[in-house]
Amino acid sequence: MEKSVIRQIFDSAQPNSVNLGLGELQFPMPEYLHSHAVKILFDEDIRYTPNAGLINSRQAIATNYKNASPNQVIITNGAQEALYATLKTILNPGDEILLPDPGFSAYASIVKMLGALPKFYLLDERRNFALDNDSLFSQVTPKTKAILINTPGNPSGTALSANELNTIANCCRLNNLFLISDEIYQALYLEKSPPTAYDFYDKTIIISGLSKSHCMTGWRIGWALAPLDLAQQINVTHQYLTTCANYLGQRLCQYAFNDQATQYQRELRAKLRLNYRLFHDIMSNIAINRSDSAPYIFINILQDGFEFAKKMLDYKVIVIPGLAFSQRLTNWIRISYALPEEDLIIGAEILKKNLYR
Amino acid sequence: MEKSVIRQIFDSAQPNSVNLGLGELQFPMPEYLHSHAVKILFDEDIRYTPNAGLINSRQAIATNYKNASPNQVIITNGAQEALYATLKTILNPGDEILLPDPGFSAYASIVKMLGALPKFYLLDERRNFALDNDSLFSQVTPKTKAILINTPGNPSGTALSANELNTIANCCRLNNLFLISDEIYQALYLEKSPPTAYDFYDKTIIISGLSKSHCMTGWRIGWALAPLDLAQQINVTHQYLTTCANYLGQRLCQYAFNDQATQYQRELRAKLRLNYRLFHDIMSNIAINRSDSAPYIFINILQDGFEFAKKMLDYKVIVIPGLAFSQRLTNWIRISYALPEEDLIIGAEILKKNLYR
Repeated sequence: MEKSVIRQIFDSAQPNSVNLGLGELQFPMPEYLHSHAVKILFDEDIRYTPNAGLINSRQAIATNYKNASPNQVIITNGAQEALYATLKTILNPGDEILLPDPGFSAYASIVKMLGALPKFYLLDERRNFALDNDSLFSQVTPKTKAILINTPGNPSGTALSANELNTIANCCRLNNLFLISDEIYQALYLEKSPPTAYDFYDKTIIISGLSKSHCMTGWRIGWALAPLDLAQQINVTHQYLTTCANYLGQRLCQYAFNDQATQYQRELRAKLRLNYRLFHDIMSNIAINRSDSAPYIFINILQDGFEFAKKMLDYKVIVIPGLAFSQRLTNWIRISYALPEEDLIIGAEILKKNLYR
Repeated sequence: MEKSVIRQIFDSAQPNSVNLGLGELQFPMPEYLHSHAVKILFDEDIRYTPNAGLINSRQAIATNYKNASPNQVIITNGAQEALYATLKTILNPGDEILLPDPGFSAYASIVKMLGALPKFYLLDERRNFALDNDSLFSQVTPKTKAILINTPGNPSGTALSANELNTIANCCRLNNLFLISDEIYQALYLEKSPPTAYDFYDKTIIISGLSKSHCMTGWRIGWALAPLDLAQQINVTHQYLTTCANYLGQRLCQYAFNDQATQYQRELRAKLRLNYRLFHDIMSNIAINRSDSAPYIFINILQDGFEFAKKMLDYKVIVIPGLAFSQRLTNWIRISYALPEEDLIIGAEILKKNLYR
């Protein structure tokens, strides 16, 4: 496997560049969770937990999903491990899985690592990355095991509608497929809380975590939420991958969904909404797709995105070329607007100047 | 895959049992590392790190190995992930690997998960688990990719000698194999620091971490140390498994090998040495194999170990049956002596009574 396009760009970036490329919100974690971390560090032994995670933490996570039991939750070293463990559990060599185009490149990389075959359905860039139904249904074969969706999506920032989720659920039901829904950006919506795939189909596996919703990337806390029997199998895989997630991060899950968390997320979304509008205002005359959810917007720049991204490094601005997400959308770049306002303004102004040249 | 034997025993244990079964030292982490953790938590943002880990932490780890470069080090979510990532990187479906019998059962489980074939060489229980050279050399076929060793070993607690490591290195050299050496118990020796496989063969991958050496299981910090080109490949695998290890634990690596750490480990070993002697004294008339290194002793109880372990649960003592480590050594049990003296005494006395019945 070659080094990812994203990694190539980051490795060539100058120090102190404005980073519009990160999949990491450049805001601090919730103060009240930080205080809990200090208290736990003083009061408790940092030991192994059960493989699937501390039961109270699994319980707290389960409350986010209608009628879910804590035994459906496996806590992992970030959503990345939840994704790998789920795919490793479901896919055998030779199996096929449908992935979004454009989409997070790690999906296809993991599928290939497992000896399975990625096939791609289209999110239509002309309709703000709405699902292309035909391309979904036409890719299903007897070897298809699962459909993977990412809502709200990377790199588009757009969420699948209830209608679209219904269509996808129907496709899964008709063909007896698992539905894997990566919902790591779910809490970062700008206007309206997007629907979760969990409410549409019983063989759904949700992938999520605290990294984006609570600006806690370095804590490495993610989870898979799956039907009970599948959850047990994912837990066995997870056991051999990493034994268990780190104790301190797991403990914080217990406080991550209470009233104070809700308040933190409300303020975070308000900030992200302002940033999004600010970016739109600066880019005024450039057509930009809608983003339903931070941190991403995907922009058609009408020129090669990889060359443009490399050129922007000279101006100390990091953006990610569309090539990282799609073989088709090479004239696009992905922008993250989840950074302090002053940095966003600097970055957007430089970006705009160079797009007009 | 079925639930492991160890997990079955633990799941049936009564609350407040004396735990002679854990692979976790029941002692607190170093106080000075704890203080660093508090300080870092107050002073720094807990963010993503580079996939392979923070460079200063990789540097600190590298100092433990002669002439090693930080770029050879990949920091992982515990040694478990280092092991999985290494095996996943080296083994293709159909490949063979030589594993120790007796040995940690996860080795064979991971190998099978990867579609590869575990073959077993013998550690001779009649010679204190010395390497059986013939069984090693005779298992090598054209499909063999690697030999895995565990020194000091689980479940025996015995370390491979320089002579044995030379023999193994020669076998690898003759057949162009990788040598994977799980050295997670290396720092817990009782009398003499055991040799590391790193000094015997250039295609060696060391698996280790802070979990045992610093009583820091819940922090989930392990590493793989590999030849430079292989380290880069392991890092790509690691990236797709878990992105990176947690920030706070990684940061502590920077302070984990200084003078204060050396002093902590000296005191820890003194405590473990006392425990080992205490256990020996209590078991006086029962023949017990030598343990070179905490936390384990492996004992031949001349009766079925699984039945005995289940019976001991009624007396609130947890021990692990030999079946968890070998299909041959079913009359053995594994004991951990890394727990507070008063608990060890209670457990050993109950154990002794039941062995004499």
